[in-house]
Amino acid sequence: MAPSDPSPHPWAGVIPDEDVAAFSGGDTNLDRPLEGGARPALIIVDMTRAFVDSQYPTGWSATGVPAVMANATLLEAARAATIPVFFTKSWEDPSHAVAPSEWGRWKASQTAEPDPALGPGDVIVEQLTPLANEVVIHKQLKPSAFFGSQLASLLLYEHVDTAIVTGMMTSGCVRATAVDAFQLNLHVVIPHEACADRSQISHKVNLFDLHMKYADVVSVAETVEYLKAGLPGERQ
Amino acid sequence: MAPSDPSPHPWAGVIPDEDVAAFSGGDTNLDRPLEGGARPALIIVDMTRAFVDSQYPTGWSATGVPAVMANATLLEAARAATIPVFFTKSWEDPSHAVAPSEWGRWKASQTAEPDPALGPGDVIVEQLTPLANEVVIHKQLKPSAFFGSQLASLLLYEHVDTAIVTGMMTSGCVRATAVDAFQLNLHVVIPHEACADRSQISHKVNLFDLHMKYADVVSVAETVEYLKAGLPGERQ
Amino acid sequence: MAPSDPSPHPWAGVIPDEDVAAFSGGDTNLDRPLEGGARPALIIVDMTRAFVDSQYPTGWSATGVPAVMANATLLEAARAATIPVFFTKSWEDPSHAVAPSEWGRWKASQTAEPDPALGPGDVIVEQLTPLANEVVIHKQLKPSAFFGSQLASLLLYEHVDTAIVTGMMTSGCVRATAVDAFQLNLHVVIPHEACADRSQISHKVNLFDLHMKYADVVSVAETVEYLKAGLPGERQ
Amino acid sequence: MAPSDPSPHPWAGVIPDEDVAAFSGGDTNLDRPLEGGARPALIIVDMTRAFVDSQYPTGWSATGVPAVMANATLLEAARAATIPVFFTKSWEDPSHAVAPSEWGRWKASQTAEPDPALGPGDVIVEQLTPLANEVVIHKQLKPSAFFGSQLASLLLYEHVDTAIVTGMMTSGCVRATAVDAFQLNLHVVIPHEACADRSQISHKVNLFDLHMKYADVVSVAETVEYLKAGLPGERQ
Repeated sequence: MAPSDPSPHPWAGVIPDEDVAAFSGGDTNLDRPLEGGARPALIIVDMTRAFVDSQYPTGWSATGVPAVMANATLLEAARAATIPVFFTKSWEDPSHAVAPSEWGRWKASQTAEPDPALGPGDVIVEQLTPLANEVVIHKQLKPSAFFGSQLASLLLYEHVDTAIVTGMMTSGCVRATAVDAFQLNLHVVIPHEACADRSQISHKVNLFDLHMKYADVVSVAETVEYLKAGLPGERQ
Repeated sequence: MAPSDPSPHPWAGVIPDEDVAAFSGGDTNLDRPLEGGARPALIIVDMTRAFVDSQYPTGWSATGVPAVMANATLLEAARAATIPVFFTKSWEDPSHAVAPSEWGRWKASQTAEPDPALGPGDVIVEQLTPLANEVVIHKQLKPSAFFGSQLASLLLYEHVDTAIVTGMMTSGCVRATAVDAFQLNLHVVIPHEACADRSQISHKVNLFDLHMKYADVVSVAETVEYLKAGLPGERQ
Repeated sequence: MAPSDPSPHPWAGVIPDEDVAAFSGGDTNLDRPLEGGARPALIIVDMTRAFVDSQYPTGWSATGVPAVMANATLLEAARAATIPVFFTKSWEDPSHAVAPSEWGRWKASQTAEPDPALGPGDVIVEQLTPLANEVVIHKQLKPSAFFGSQLASLLLYEHVDTAIVTGMMTSGCVRATAVDAFQLNLHVVIPHEACADRSQISHKVNLFDLHMKYADVVSVAETVEYLKAGLPGERQ
Repeated sequence: MAPSDPSPHPWAGVIPDEDVAAFSGGDTNLDRPLEGGARPALIIVDMTRAFVDSQYPTGWSATGVPAVMANATLLEAARAATIPVFFTKSWEDPSHAVAPSEWGRWKASQTAEPDPALGPGDVIVEQLTPLANEVVIHKQLKPSAFFGSQLASLLLYEHVDTAIVTGMMTSGCVRATAVDAFQLNLHVVIPHEACADRSQISHKVNLFDLHMKYADVVSVAETVEYLKAGLPGERQ
């Protein structure tokens, strides 16, 4: 599968040449084409108001809003290709407060409360609203979409061999989800413009880490090209 | 538990102030003391010849050798405190070649073969040789020490509430192991001098990511202090 | 911990002597006392209207109602001992219909719809209503309370070493949950009157299997005695 | 896929009619044909000398030897159909004794030592010797072949949608493996003559439980017929 002309790597200017060279004699091909299978799924991680919109204390519009646009492009291509689409968001049982054991060991301080006038933040942004047949994984306050969920079972049911992982934050839930997809022996594809983070250096270095070890970090354009070409016309 | 005077953060000079400030209004206390429980375990990840010694194509002595020394200090303190110690290394069934399904989806090229005169690389370095009662987790060619292993069961058996995670590579197996320990609701402690990587920027940014979200990234000295103080004298 | 006079085994009259003798030369002590640790948790599986009440097509009052009473006794003892209590029930996202991938591969036919006048069946029965601080695990249509949930993380957070597993059905979700608790190296205790099933022979033989391999199948009375004695007065 | 004339159910004479009728109004079709997908794998659980041969204290030749023959038939059909084949056996690190945390919470007494003249028991029986390209899962002293292993990853790599599970003991490792395969949304097929147990009533009731809920319990002949028909001629 030949890629279109690759865009510059998102980590350009951040990773020194000697750090690239340190990998296995420097013979990893950073410009390699996307390696995907015949049955991809799109997994959109935590693209919620609370992360995308700076009005929420956890939000970051500067990178969140462009990532929404990039995900909308991917989502359109995924639906056109009739591949399975999964969304994640966290979830709290409305019948009781979050127990300390459910909150766990997060280090980030979370003192600021959002303005109640904004409405609930744990809602997937309007531009990416799931369709009725698309499953929303209710994450249990942990980074990986696979941890404490049945995402692996859902992917097995759908005969998925390739996980296209996007969303927020690159250095948190996207990375943890991508690593678990890799550990499950899926091909992992990361369209980088569809990922976002509050820390730009974390964003770039995590994409570098993923590309050197576990995934193909590519452009949205290359991912759309892959979704248009070479997939079976119909699903079993 | 008051820390000794903290050393400079290992990511100093790499993470811009605005990236730190982007976290929850900037009120995360980067100099917070180590938060650990009464029952820590030490988990030393992949400190094998193949990673520590530059004579192997996957090795990196410049940071690997100092990390061996730091781990030796921690190991001595852990044994003195009689806490459980776990090691990891990968493992191949000697009765057959690694199947493609076992190798999985690694992106790193691995063309260079080590010099046969060096002996096997997948051996824990001599300075950190496990004792007979210390369990070696045989990782299945995946980054997290928890994935495809029974490490979670072993920690439950030992009533562990705190994972002290060290080893190589910071941006690979150490991070994946630390994230899973966090997801299992353990306190996670990362003594940074005992971790090493081939990429220095990945090393530093991964430590920053871990410290901001999932773990306390501290010095070896602060970790030793924790192991000496405040632990129950005897184990149940 | 000396047991009170043990009740007859629930499988008496069903398991032939030669089947008992087939285990390791017949030297397993079937009347051994309950072996539990210092930090038990009570896990009440799927004690919902839909299973307990024969008015629902999946319900079975003949054994369900006595099991409710037995669980109420255990729940009172657990709360008095201030040990963690967990409940499970299945859960469907009210915002969309269950997808085929979420339903999975169940063999049981499920043609009959409950009478709408009965109200929702997936509600824990009134006599066992969870308190605000007790976590309800929302199972994802799979038998084990550990599968696709974060129950293991919750138990680690609470330093649990012993799982007291009860509920319905003995041969389904109770067994699968007990096996996973065993695999996680917890002591497993099954108070048999607090478990129920539609098939009486499955109930009895599953209790036998669990007792011979993975758990201590004991009476509710012996379990209450254990909860009253020998536990630390306070939790850390 | 029409079955051949079904053999009598293995639980005939053991399960009372009212226990069958208790399932969902009695409308489960016990004689339904095998439901399998296009990409099955054969998973042969623990068919080792120690379980098959009564000379070992854990062995049971009366049912083990016929199960070896049935598995040999299935193995020949699986290899002819070029489907993936997996074996399991337990495994101990030869460099150290089994730690208490690795042994875990087994209830079965294990006092008798095998006669050293017999040779090691944890060896797959000669008639079922794995080929060089067939992966042996080294189970970590736990019943499910999925627990603490990377079997799920291997199945995802091979695009497997159907698990044919056989071996010993029906009521232990076979059942636990089958339940996990079901939880992963695989079709599960159990050719009953290829499973064996020390307890005949446990064998029969576990097959009944699996057939009513999670799997198609069928004959070896029906499984071979499925492997010969309807599979893609080539693997992707």
